[in-house]
Amino acid sequence: MDVIIIGAGAVGMKTASRLRRRNPEAEITVVESGKWISLSRCGLPYFLEGKVSSIDDLRKTPYGAVRDENFFSKLKKVKVLTETKALEIDRKRKTLKVSKNGGEDEINYDYLVIATGARAVRPKIPGIDSERVVGLYSPEDAKKILRFIEEGAKRAVVIGGGFIGLEACEALKMLGLEVTLIEALDRVAPTMLDPEMSRLVSAYLKEKGVKVLTSTKVEKIVENGALKVYAGKEVEADFAVAVTGIKPNSEIAVKAGLEVGKTGGIVVNERLQTNDEFIYAGGDCVETVNLLTGEKTVAPFGDVANKHGRVIADNILGGNTRFRGVIGTAIIKVFDFSVGATGLTEERARNFFRVSSVLFSGFDRTHYYPGVGIVRIKLVFEEETKRILGAQVVGNGIVDKRIDVIATAIIGKMTLEDLEQLDLAYAPPYSPAIDPVITTAYVAKNKLEGLFNAIKAEEVKQMLQKGEDFLILDIRTEAEAKNMRINLPNVINIPLTELRNRVKELPRDRLIVVVCPLGLRAYEASRILISEGFNKVRVLEGGFPFLLTL
Amino acid sequence: MDVIIIGAGAVGMKTASRLRRRNPEAEITVVESGKWISLSRCGLPYFLEGKVSSIDDLRKTPYGAVRDENFFSKLKKVKVLTETKALEIDRKRKTLKVSKNGGEDEINYDYLVIATGARAVRPKIPGIDSERVVGLYSPEDAKKILRFIEEGAKRAVVIGGGFIGLEACEALKMLGLEVTLIEALDRVAPTMLDPEMSRLVSAYLKEKGVKVLTSTKVEKIVENGALKVYAGKEVEADFAVAVTGIKPNSEIAVKAGLEVGKTGGIVVNERLQTNDEFIYAGGDCVETVNLLTGEKTVAPFGDVANKHGRVIADNILGGNTRFRGVIGTAIIKVFDFSVGATGLTEERARNFFRVSSVLFSGFDRTHYYPGVGIVRIKLVFEEETKRILGAQVVGNGIVDKRIDVIATAIIGKMTLEDLEQLDLAYAPPYSPAIDPVITTAYVAKNKLEGLFNAIKAEEVKQMLQKGEDFLILDIRTEAEAKNMRINLPNVINIPLTELRNRVKELPRDRLIVVVCPLGLRAYEASRILISEGFNKVRVLEGGFPFLLTL
Repeated sequence: MDVIIIGAGAVGMKTASRLRRRNPEAEITVVESGKWISLSRCGLPYFLEGKVSSIDDLRKTPYGAVRDENFFSKLKKVKVLTETKALEIDRKRKTLKVSKNGGEDEINYDYLVIATGARAVRPKIPGIDSERVVGLYSPEDAKKILRFIEEGAKRAVVIGGGFIGLEACEALKMLGLEVTLIEALDRVAPTMLDPEMSRLVSAYLKEKGVKVLTSTKVEKIVENGALKVYAGKEVEADFAVAVTGIKPNSEIAVKAGLEVGKTGGIVVNERLQTNDEFIYAGGDCVETVNLLTGEKTVAPFGDVANKHGRVIADNILGGNTRFRGVIGTAIIKVFDFSVGATGLTEERARNFFRVSSVLFSGFDRTHYYPGVGIVRIKLVFEEETKRILGAQVVGNGIVDKRIDVIATAIIGKMTLEDLEQLDLAYAPPYSPAIDPVITTAYVAKNKLEGLFNAIKAEEVKQMLQKGEDFLILDIRTEAEAKNMRINLPNVINIPLTELRNRVKELPRDRLIVVVCPLGLRAYEASRILISEGFNKVRVLEGGFPFLLTL
Repeated sequence: MDVIIIGAGAVGMKTASRLRRRNPEAEITVVESGKWISLSRCGLPYFLEGKVSSIDDLRKTPYGAVRDENFFSKLKKVKVLTETKALEIDRKRKTLKVSKNGGEDEINYDYLVIATGARAVRPKIPGIDSERVVGLYSPEDAKKILRFIEEGAKRAVVIGGGFIGLEACEALKMLGLEVTLIEALDRVAPTMLDPEMSRLVSAYLKEKGVKVLTSTKVEKIVENGALKVYAGKEVEADFAVAVTGIKPNSEIAVKAGLEVGKTGGIVVNERLQTNDEFIYAGGDCVETVNLLTGEKTVAPFGDVANKHGRVIADNILGGNTRFRGVIGTAIIKVFDFSVGATGLTEERARNFFRVSSVLFSGFDRTHYYPGVGIVRIKLVFEEETKRILGAQVVGNGIVDKRIDVIATAIIGKMTLEDLEQLDLAYAPPYSPAIDPVITTAYVAKNKLEGLFNAIKAEEVKQMLQKGEDFLILDIRTEAEAKNMRINLPNVINIPLTELRNRVKELPRDRLIVVVCPLGLRAYEASRILISEGFNKVRVLEGGFPFLLTL
């Protein structure tokens, strides 16, 4: 059996390795247009930052062997042809035409795997092709950035506030640069996060010294030794990192008459077979199903690519391994913040379901345990069935665990009630007695039952802008209030523990919005006020950072 | 409405607080025989160790208020009577007889909540009641231990290798003591871990300088200024910490004619109502259902207690909140190791199901990311349906996340196939491209399909003991092999990358057991050997630590 794989990234090499493990006889050839094999591109920001000391570390096995042509040939009997371009598939004759060093060749296949990945797309902006505008998709990109810095660069502009853009901000800032992030949409990480969650990330970036310009389009870039980036205003920089998204490399499939979807990704079934039964495809160049919406989507993630490789190999060998689809789980580290999401944002979910959502902020571990952090969770669920549709978690606490638990709950089609019933691992170093995921479900239930009369920060902001008459009750201790004042009109501070004795200080005819850093105390305070006969009381959902970042 | 709550621990105070939030009018009285209110006993080992600086930190709110009588009275209008003993329930008259300072009193209730918790039980051993034998269940216990140390104690014996025993070992060792752990059963954490997983923990404890004696019964303790603990041999110590388990405080329920189960826990329904509709009970003094086996069990965990409080309050107020049961999830930190479990051990599962299991060892994050650790996972599943029944995870890597994901999968009644399809959060700082949970499912599938011909460490050990003729093929690099020799007979080292070229060095007629630290390379090597026509090849499951700790 002759198998040709186009592309030596995660999908390609996983397919090759798994094929070899299952079948000693197959002739496996990998055709790669570049020179890198099996390189973890997700590690590039960490190489840039210096956390990973060499590019080779990104293509080594855990036991230190560099995954090059020789490694695959010697260990796996897999032939990898680098710097070899796949030109054309002849499906009738089952051959692939390739070119190397100017010469052309044709190779026969029984099965062909298209694992061509994706390529960067840049907006059509005058000057974007300047030598001083780089990506962060390849070792060459990272090395070029490091060279700029060696040569004295001090100021960088990052164009694009998605995953890689945010990781790039961290890396460049850690390298001591002045960093300006420019994002065309109204917020950073726009596909992952709803506006209020995204604002937390922006605010944190600013705290870390990154200038963040959202809703800002780059109009042109002028090179004059350094760069001038025109984006409403003029931003001067020594170089720019443009990471504005990717596009599936599906041209070879189109040319061969294979079905390609509106997403630009090659159409495959759950076995990752194209409409030609002898041709499989996987990774960034295919479209997969979003399990929540049924929509087709391109999921350019390292985990998906690795899973695809396994599925393709099994099916080529007559197995029946499936890849059902994705729910859009993703995570990024930004300095000491973790930013994670799974399922649908509220914004997206509204196109498909009637949804509700809830915000919860709390400690990630028992609050007395050293190193405790904060997690802020937004949970999105279907109004009628209470099925979990998505979550976003942000904070300096343990975020990934909560995302993964909710991601598992989504795959398990669980509801709010199921989350409440989870039996998660509790000990002080790992979690509060009730895990934030479970408490979030509790808060959602309190909200549905009217026990928790929430007001969103957006609404408070609007009322402030309209000059409406209401009171903001800051329920923190005096020490906390002194330490960080809330710069808003009509704020009164009464510590929660004194509230019952001091209710007389509060007006009964005005709306009172109770606020605190996390929302827990504000909720308690609202219950006290209601029990004291106040009937215009609302709780700022999720805590005041949601208001202060507006 | 008059509500009396017996016990001011997590269940009691959660019930009181939630009642108050939902109902401003209820008269809520908490009767507590001791003097502590709402104290996090799970934090005691960390207080002992010095990670938490004062006992008050264990009863403070996150914003620094000490949860004492005054706090509950002022903030929540909840009356807490400390050092007040609940003597007897008169169910007909709906009264509770209490005693305080020698005087007796009777209080009326509409609803009564029994939240009496559990108490330590000690084995009946001569000398166990010595002043120098303490528990680790109360602040007084912890303070007593610290006093011994102040007075010069250098050697401690910990009797009981369960959760608290293991946490005590860490704390005492960190305080600079010589520590000997004595466990009557054949292994540490015996209810949480199967033997092979438990041995990893024992070996690690030994590495950390703790003497571990399993299958060892303490026969008698003699006090002579210091202590002599007779347990097969004689262990000298300055004091002993006896943490050999707990027993529900259900006597008051028995006396009142309430139903109490064989476990010793009070019988309650999903609403946590006893067989008297006006009496609820929760926490360590009740029995709950194990959702996997249907068995009744006492679940003395902080998270369960807090959940129970919420359920009880809701139901007293006419709500319909349920507590379905537990699956036995738990976690302990032991130095830099995390030890977690969820669902059933293989040992226990065999009483109810036909089960299979698989061991997987791997990196917790991308192997090139700084601080990467190892997790070793045992996954237990039902043979026929492939439903996940339990998991144990141990290692210096991120353990809690994997436990919680599998715990969620168990609640969701998921199968191996579902685990494979999980869409978890990947980025290098959080996880390898394929999360260890998913890889464990892959390995299970490989094993079921015969691709991964595993041999358990126990079997290898037996073969070694019988002097059977077989070869151990150590597949590590030369540097690794030099660095740590495997002290077993018939070991040959051929690095994986050289294997294809050196197969001639291996005999075709003898059984070859391939070993490596994690098991991944050994699997790959086995596929190569099989492809080269070797047919007596097996892979040491989970990596050689499972063999070396035997």
